[in-house]
Amino acid sequence: MRFAAGVEYDGSSFLGWQRLPHGETVQGAVERALGKVVDAPVSVTCSGRTDSGVHARCQVIHFDIDVERSPRALLLGSNSNLPDAVALRWVQPVEASFHARFSARARRYRYHLLNRLARPALDRLQFSWVREPLDAGRMHEAAQHLVGEHDFTAFRTLACQAPNPVRTLHSLSVVREADRVIIDVQANAFLHHMVRNIVGSLIPVGRGERQPEWLAELLCGRDRALAGPTAPAQGLVFLGPLYPRWFHLPDEVSFAVEALEEMASTPAFEADDGNDAAE
Amino acid sequence: MRFAAGVEYDGSSFLGWQRLPHGETVQGAVERALGKVVDAPVSVTCSGRTDSGVHARCQVIHFDIDVERSPRALLLGSNSNLPDAVALRWVQPVEASFHARFSARARRYRYHLLNRLARPALDRLQFSWVREPLDAGRMHEAAQHLVGEHDFTAFRTLACQAPNPVRTLHSLSVVREADRVIIDVQANAFLHHMVRNIVGSLIPVGRGERQPEWLAELLCGRDRALAGPTAPAQGLVFLGPLYPRWFHLPDEVSFAVEALEEMASTPAFEADDGNDAAE
Repeated sequence: MRFAAGVEYDGSSFLGWQRLPHGETVQGAVERALGKVVDAPVSVTCSGRTDSGVHARCQVIHFDIDVERSPRALLLGSNSNLPDAVALRWVQPVEASFHARFSARARRYRYHLLNRLARPALDRLQFSWVREPLDAGRMHEAAQHLVGEHDFTAFRTLACQAPNPVRTLHSLSVVREADRVIIDVQANAFLHHMVRNIVGSLIPVGRGERQPEWLAELLCGRDRALAGPTAPAQGLVFLGPLYPRWFHLPDEVSFAVEALEEMASTPAFEADDGNDAAE
Repeated sequence: MRFAAGVEYDGSSFLGWQRLPHGETVQGAVERALGKVVDAPVSVTCSGRTDSGVHARCQVIHFDIDVERSPRALLLGSNSNLPDAVALRWVQPVEASFHARFSARARRYRYHLLNRLARPALDRLQFSWVREPLDAGRMHEAAQHLVGEHDFTAFRTLACQAPNPVRTLHSLSVVREADRVIIDVQANAFLHHMVRNIVGSLIPVGRGERQPEWLAELLCGRDRALAGPTAPAQGLVFLGPLYPRWFHLPDEVSFAVEALEEMASTPAFEADDGNDAAE
C-alpha cells in the first residue's frame, strides 16, 4: 500500500535530506521512525532533496508498506519516534501511480533575510542577515528578469549534476515586511543551489551596487563565476512541491485547477534530469 | 550618561532575565558584553523580568556609563560579545529621568500556540502545542471578560510577591492564522505568570470544555487553584514595553499620542509594586 506524507523539519539539526552512512539526515530519521511503526524496513522517496541546514515546511514523501496501518497510527507513531526537529504533518493513502518526485509539477521555496544593523537573535535559525539597507523594490524588479523558461547555468553550483540546465521559473517575488525581506520563488524544478545563488545575486542589487538589469546579464552569460555568492542555507525554507489536484493531497501541496491548466504547457522532466536537485 | 537599549533574545538558551550567581541569564550576558565595550562594570535595569524559557522581541533596558561611547559602538561592540541567542536591537542616549521599569506605561506579550494533530518541528522553540482543535472565536469572547481594571489573583502564581494584585488589562485578543492561534495581550503591568495562566484558562474554553463565561467566574473567584494550568514558557514572547513619546524611543516601544491620553487615567504603580514581575 502506498502512502504520501508531509514532513516539516528544522534543517539546522541535520546533514541535509539524503540518507548517509554516517551522520544524521532527515531521510534517515524518517525511515527509522516509520520502520519502528511498521516493524519492517521502510524506504522513502522525497519530492526534492534539501542540503545541510535548509528547512522544510512541507517536504512530501511517498513510501510503500505491506502491513495494515491507519494514516493516523503512522502519523502519531512516527512523531513519537522522530527527533524534535522533524515531524510528519499528515499521512494519507495514495494511488500506486503517485510518485513524490515525478508527480510534482512545481516546487516552492522561501528565503528569509533579516535586514537591520543588529544581527538576528530570536529568529537566528531561520533568517540570514544583511546589515546594509536593501531596496526590496529594486530586488523585485531585478528578479522579474529570471521569470520564464531559461538556461539557469549562471545560478547552479559547479557540482550540479543535472544534464539539462533549463528550468521554468513560474514566479519570483521580493517583499519587505518591516526589517525582514522575504523572497518567494516557484519553478517546475530547481538546479543545485539555484535559489541560494539567485538570492546571492539579488542582494548586491538591493544594496545598490548593481543595477536590476544585472540579473538579465548574468542569466544570458551562463557563467557561475560572475554571479553573486551562494546565500547561507539557514535562510532557506522548502515550502513544498505542488501536485495535480486529482491526487487529493492537502491544499498546501495541490495546484488550483486554473493554475494546473497554465502549467500544462510546462514540459515534463525526464527521470534522470536532476529535478530533485538539492537546494 | 544614561542609555536605553532594545534587547531581543531566545529565552530557551537562558535561565530567565535576572542575573544569578550560577547559570546563564540574559541580564548576566548583557552586562558582561557591555562591560567589555566600556571596560568597566555595567549594571542594567530592565522594563520587566522574564522567566526561564520566555523570549523577548524588544525588552528595554537602561544603564549608565561614565566613558564616552557612541550608540553605534555600544550596539556593535555588545553584539560581538553576546552569545548568538541575544542581541541588542538599538542603543540611544536618554535623559537621566528615563527609567526602563518606572517610565513604562504598558507591557505587551504575545503567546504562540500551534494547533494541529502533529507536534511542532520547525517552529518548536517559539510555539507551544495543543493537539485538539481550538475555537479561537470562543477564546476571544472569553478573553474580553478580563479586559479592564481587575484583581487578577486568580491568574497569578502563588509565589508572586506583588503586594497589589490589581492590574489594568488594555486589550486581549485571540486570532487564528491557519494552524496557529496567536494571543496578544497588553496591560499596564503583569503579575507573575499572569499571561501564561490566562492562556492556560483560555485553552479549555477553546476546546469546548468550558464556557466563555468561565473566565469571568475565575476572575471573580480570585482562587488560583480553580483556573487552568500554566501554559508552557516557550510559547511566550515579551514584545516589549511602551513609553510616552516624549522619550523619543523607537516607534515599537512608544505610545501613540492619542493612546497615551487614554492611558493617562491608568494609575501609576509604586516602586515596590512588582510591576516588573517575571512572566
